[in-house]
Amino acid sequence: MAAEIVNPRSDSATTESADEPFDPAFALHRGGKMAIQATVPVRDKDDLSLAYTPGVAKVCTAIAEQPELVHDYTWKSQVVAVVTDGTAVLGLGDIGPEASLPVMEGKAILFKQFGGVDAVPIALATTDTDEIIETVVRLAPSFGGVNLEDISAPRCFEIERRLQERLDIPVFHDDQHGTAVVTLAALRNAAKLTGRGLGDLRAVISGSGAAGVAIAKFLLEAGLGDVAVTDRKGVVSRDRGDLTDVKREIAGLTNRAGLTGSLEDALRGADVFIGVSGGTVPEEAVATMAPGAFVFAMANPNPEVHPDVAHRYAAVVATGRSDYPNQINNVLAFPGIFAGALQVRASRITEGMKIAAANALADVVGDDLSADYVIPSPFDERVAPAVTAAVAAAARAEGVARR
Amino acid sequence: MAAEIVNPRSDSATTESADEPFDPAFALHRGGKMAIQATVPVRDKDDLSLAYTPGVAKVCTAIAEQPELVHDYTWKSQVVAVVTDGTAVLGLGDIGPEASLPVMEGKAILFKQFGGVDAVPIALATTDTDEIIETVVRLAPSFGGVNLEDISAPRCFEIERRLQERLDIPVFHDDQHGTAVVTLAALRNAAKLTGRGLGDLRAVISGSGAAGVAIAKFLLEAGLGDVAVTDRKGVVSRDRGDLTDVKREIAGLTNRAGLTGSLEDALRGADVFIGVSGGTVPEEAVATMAPGAFVFAMANPNPEVHPDVAHRYAAVVATGRSDYPNQINNVLAFPGIFAGALQVRASRITEGMKIAAANALADVVGDDLSADYVIPSPFDERVAPAVTAAVAAAARAEGVARR
Repeated sequence: MAAEIVNPRSDSATTESADEPFDPAFALHRGGKMAIQATVPVRDKDDLSLAYTPGVAKVCTAIAEQPELVHDYTWKSQVVAVVTDGTAVLGLGDIGPEASLPVMEGKAILFKQFGGVDAVPIALATTDTDEIIETVVRLAPSFGGVNLEDISAPRCFEIERRLQERLDIPVFHDDQHGTAVVTLAALRNAAKLTGRGLGDLRAVISGSGAAGVAIAKFLLEAGLGDVAVTDRKGVVSRDRGDLTDVKREIAGLTNRAGLTGSLEDALRGADVFIGVSGGTVPEEAVATMAPGAFVFAMANPNPEVHPDVAHRYAAVVATGRSDYPNQINNVLAFPGIFAGALQVRASRITEGMKIAAANALADVVGDDLSADYVIPSPFDERVAPAVTAAVAAAARAEGVARR
Repeated sequence: MAAEIVNPRSDSATTESADEPFDPAFALHRGGKMAIQATVPVRDKDDLSLAYTPGVAKVCTAIAEQPELVHDYTWKSQVVAVVTDGTAVLGLGDIGPEASLPVMEGKAILFKQFGGVDAVPIALATTDTDEIIETVVRLAPSFGGVNLEDISAPRCFEIERRLQERLDIPVFHDDQHGTAVVTLAALRNAAKLTGRGLGDLRAVISGSGAAGVAIAKFLLEAGLGDVAVTDRKGVVSRDRGDLTDVKREIAGLTNRAGLTGSLEDALRGADVFIGVSGGTVPEEAVATMAPGAFVFAMANPNPEVHPDVAHRYAAVVATGRSDYPNQINNVLAFPGIFAGALQVRASRITEGMKIAAANALADVVGDDLSADYVIPSPFDERVAPAVTAAVAAAARAEGVARR
């Protein structure tokens, strides 16, 4: 790969670098991280007459007459819009569209590197739900899919739902579903390792934002025994009077045991802890979990439970960090999920496709399964092809594929 | 260049090509004409920690604190949105956004090939003026410039004007200004060749759409003696009661001679004919032009006056076709104009920058000037650097540069 990667811009603006902080991240980001590449030649008159006028007119006319040909003769079916409003960027919060662009470019190059999917950063100058929806609907003719990114809850739920209702291309909020898919894959392998079924497990999720809500719904969908979600005030339960619409829905779906009280209360006897909050869980609370528990402390850079502490009590420990085993990293999911969906021109990404992605991801681990290896590395080259194939097959099985 | 150009998709969809018309243009377009390329490595954990989390967070924070850094540390200042609503595509008219995409992709790869500028096709699912403007304003944080393309008149005038009022990045409707810049360059050289000044020339423009209106205004700006614009009903003149707002403005600016009547009437004694109408001009009318006239019959694929006919009467003949000398082709202008504007982070593209582009383009011809060579070839490698440098310098001189 090295020979193919060039940054023709890195030398172009050195006059301005006098005040550049000395940091390899700044040096790497100078001039951005991506470029457009022509995939056809434009070297002479003959090339131009095919790729542009007059040759292009025949292709335009054919698409005007038979609209689905746009998937064959343009990059539409290869390209995803990575859309944000900059309101929930990493752990940084609402930093605005311009400041979110480095993350969106990063996402775009991960799409390319891991899934072979082209992606374009679209950071919007609005945070209004209706305006975001209208804008993306108007952009949609140019794209084969929409990856929503770093849009704060609860707007992200409504934006995704209403966009998918209006569009016939996949709309996928990665902060929700990517995280949920990778979590389920790791959980499935942890259960397998310890000889339990998903139905035997009771999980507690710390965090009721986009990721927490999506993980809760998805784990129940996948057959987990019970899930409780906690926010800053404790367990999200039906008897609470302070719930938003989204949390009220979660209260109705989760917590079959009828737990109330604090996160610590909920953890007592629980089989699984899933941290997507960024808070801290005291060691004493971890100690009260059921024997052979799983601790997935995914906050970055500081896990809710330090892995060394978690290992004293838990059978399997996972984090969001690359310097510990079992990294729960979205890049394991989204490139293959979109690659699979685009390959068969799926009109949406269904629950079944996400379950298929999680299963495929878990299966990559195979017989090498161990407490320190319940989820593959992001750089395992088997991952994206496996997820892609599983998602494409599931899309066909669920009737949302168009080829 | 050949070795760098690959189309990894061209083999991927052969199962569907059974009903593909046998045509090299369709074969070339399969899978689209462009792709995204990472310009930084993402091969291992260390790469990922710089290009994505956690390293990217520092860059985001720096931009949040100092917004202009977005130009340094993202691809914003390298990338142009090629925006259309699909209403005036080539000679095909209102074929809609999807069918316009092959043209927008073609434009994008010309931006890259000739100007080194990245460009992203954005074909919008709306033709409403206000909605187009709102949508582009919301997209603007992600882009360094906006190239409007194939949007029908008169909406294109209002859209460009109102967008430029609201945005601090260049907004440029290429169908207007690109054509005007190349026309002026050719006209300047034709005048030089025949020993006349621009002030000595009276021009007649056939066509009052986007290109005709823009050429008329621009030639007057550049000092042409007089310009008359004609539409289907004849000369656009102050005494006509059937004029749209735009034509009323044109009537006020042009036609100092107070001509009335038909195109043929206006051509009598005229020094320059500029065809951007797609109609046909009878040979008898061309014969009535002044001695040593210039005929720029730019309709494609059928020039308003066939070059063989034009040569019987005119000193200089130009067309829009690549198979005759003196091709008036926008690709001579837009890549360098945007490259120059982006290089200095211009907030807009001024009249002075367009004049500078036309002069630079004319100057490339230099001492090789002849009746068959008043404008360089699109493949002349001197063109884009010359236009880029001239536009950047003009932006600085006019006070719209930000670096």
